[in-house]
Amino acid sequence: MNGGAKGALAVGQSGGPTAVTNATLVEIVREAPAYAEVGRILGLVHGIEGALAQEMIDLRQQDPSVLEYVARTPAAALGSSRYKVREEDCERVLEVFRAHEVRYLLLVGGNDSMDTCHRIARMAAREGYELAVVGVPKTIDNDLPGTDHCPGYGSAARFIALATMDAGMDLEAMRTFDDVSILETMGRNTGWLAAASALGRRAPSDPPHLIYVPERPFDEAQFMETVQRVHDANGHVFCVVAEGLRDRHGQFVGLVPETVQTDVFGHKLVTLTSGVGQYLAARIREVLCLQARCSRPGTLQRSAGTTISCTDLEEAKMVGRAAVQHAVRGVSDVMVALRRVSNNPYRSEPGIAPLACVANRERFLADAWIEPDNTGMTSEFLEYALPLIGDPLPEYGRLRCVRVPKRTA
Amino acid sequence: MNGGAKGALAVGQSGGPTAVTNATLVEIVREAPAYAEVGRILGLVHGIEGALAQEMIDLRQQDPSVLEYVARTPAAALGSSRYKVREEDCERVLEVFRAHEVRYLLLVGGNDSMDTCHRIARMAAREGYELAVVGVPKTIDNDLPGTDHCPGYGSAARFIALATMDAGMDLEAMRTFDDVSILETMGRNTGWLAAASALGRRAPSDPPHLIYVPERPFDEAQFMETVQRVHDANGHVFCVVAEGLRDRHGQFVGLVPETVQTDVFGHKLVTLTSGVGQYLAARIREVLCLQARCSRPGTLQRSAGTTISCTDLEEAKMVGRAAVQHAVRGVSDVMVALRRVSNNPYRSEPGIAPLACVANRERFLADAWIEPDNTGMTSEFLEYALPLIGDPLPEYGRLRCVRVPKRTA
Repeated sequence: MNGGAKGALAVGQSGGPTAVTNATLVEIVREAPAYAEVGRILGLVHGIEGALAQEMIDLRQQDPSVLEYVARTPAAALGSSRYKVREEDCERVLEVFRAHEVRYLLLVGGNDSMDTCHRIARMAAREGYELAVVGVPKTIDNDLPGTDHCPGYGSAARFIALATMDAGMDLEAMRTFDDVSILETMGRNTGWLAAASALGRRAPSDPPHLIYVPERPFDEAQFMETVQRVHDANGHVFCVVAEGLRDRHGQFVGLVPETVQTDVFGHKLVTLTSGVGQYLAARIREVLCLQARCSRPGTLQRSAGTTISCTDLEEAKMVGRAAVQHAVRGVSDVMVALRRVSNNPYRSEPGIAPLACVANRERFLADAWIEPDNTGMTSEFLEYALPLIGDPLPEYGRLRCVRVPKRTA
Repeated sequence: MNGGAKGALAVGQSGGPTAVTNATLVEIVREAPAYAEVGRILGLVHGIEGALAQEMIDLRQQDPSVLEYVARTPAAALGSSRYKVREEDCERVLEVFRAHEVRYLLLVGGNDSMDTCHRIARMAAREGYELAVVGVPKTIDNDLPGTDHCPGYGSAARFIALATMDAGMDLEAMRTFDDVSILETMGRNTGWLAAASALGRRAPSDPPHLIYVPERPFDEAQFMETVQRVHDANGHVFCVVAEGLRDRHGQFVGLVPETVQTDVFGHKLVTLTSGVGQYLAARIREVLCLQARCSRPGTLQRSAGTTISCTDLEEAKMVGRAAVQHAVRGVSDVMVALRRVSNNPYRSEPGIAPLACVANRERFLADAWIEPDNTGMTSEFLEYALPLIGDPLPEYGRLRCVRVPKRTA
């Protein structure tokens, strides 16, 4: 490609960060110099925004020891972006790429980023500009089609599984005071992360007792009945909800404008998005008269450096290497995918998926992975997800309940 | 004591759990059999509630390998309690203790638990019942007087320091989309945990940029000005708030009744405690027109098993051993304390504090530890807190910003 002249490789990060995106980036920076075809390695600052504004940094001039640290640092070292490209943006990107002799574009991101890649690849093809565009998957949401799973998911899933074990032990200890604990996970349209809360469960009485995912319409009255029933049977209820729960009318649960009286001088109108978790906790207190509280780890679940899955980390590097290899061979308009070769022992390898089959599509939890009563995950889901979170989760211990006989006192 | 007859030792856990309370419990269970004076070891189920109801389990009949797991399990293996004892409860506890020949009571807890210990110790003394009552400190709030710090704090502080580093990197990566990220920590009356967010900060531009603690009245207008100023200078603002912030009238910020329209059929009145973090995020969006979001880890910060401080873990065991030793020697109406012997290298040893000086008192952040403008912590605080969180925090890496010169495009 490119008649023997060296072409620049541009790499960017896009969408919500993960704990392992920088491992992908650093692997790309380490792999690319192995190819004689690759000249400069340009880091796009804030993804495609960096291409539009010519904000780029020279990734060949990085200290290897600093790269070692960057690879272990959560979030996105180049800066990320949520900018949605228009046709004229794609034209501008190609102008900039021409000026900088960019022949390879690797964008590490999720659904929107794959759409950006696809648009730029098509426009380059139309204009006859030789450019290999390879999307590199990364999303804690795990909602990209065309791949078994996405780098970033395994670590966030591990965070949620551990959070459920830990906050679940907390609730169990506090059961004479707290009745219901709600953990709100990310997941606007899909329940991949909420579902991961089931991965640390070893006995039926272990948390989580209830899981609600956006793949199923949410019925508040039914929810209240179920919470009461589990509380009657178990004494406490640990419940995981995805942030994007919708009712049967398609309305987000708990996303409501609220009139807030903020001070003694009058009323202020605040459009609060209380979030489904906090909303449901309030409703449980009111309707069921049970003590309920909500934890909402927010961006911690995608950025936590202490709960990185070793499997996720290795796969994040794997897709980075594969992306460089494909691009240099001139493969374009594709996303690197992960294929599961075997489940036990778990082994995966990189593949590719055409961007046309990935861009602007979402992958949902399979019907067979959600229990028929819509409050938990089946063993098929656990088999799918467990290898992705890396090392076995810790074993927690409970005391043997040898009761001391009562005495007359 | 007790004329050579063996006395039973009763141990209970009380108040909000921590990640290392079970390490204290297991150390007590392992230490007590070394003393000939100690007969049965009775675990009070849900703290003093277990004494009142004679709900107790035999802690001598525990498998050592299970105890090994329990010691590494967050929360409270015996179950915790928030029950406030009255005079008649103390009488009942003594009746039960007489019936079971309990001569040693160790209660692992915070302020309320120390009050419980003090009341029972005084009543036993008044009634001439030989009972050694020793309080064992445990609280993520770190608000017990009479001790340098409390087991449980170091691990929760480590969680908050890491959360700030991680979520801070996330915000920095998303700065073209998100402007302000708020982390809401526990801390109803004191800012010990919010303050710990400063422990991972290495450069002035590192998160957190602002810290607000309940020791200072909160001024919303001033807050808005400060957030805008930091945003102007830095491009993004990472802000940590303790849940218990109060305004100059003593009112909790963000703790307001809200009218919520929940469905198409009408209005429901929900007393939502939106929490200060989510409230301030909403106000920032409204007043400053900046993108703001809030993370609220809730019970995760006190129960996380992955961020246990090794120093905290060792000290949690140390206070357990010391409590048994004091009780068996007949020392009563005291709390085991931690004394800092040296700071560099850090070394501590157990001491004791009279419960009369501990019960129903709170320890606040020192004035000299809060910056004069009330938005951060001084180096004196960092010196105090850094040894408590154990191993050094990870070093995160940033790319060297070697700009690629722009070209005519």
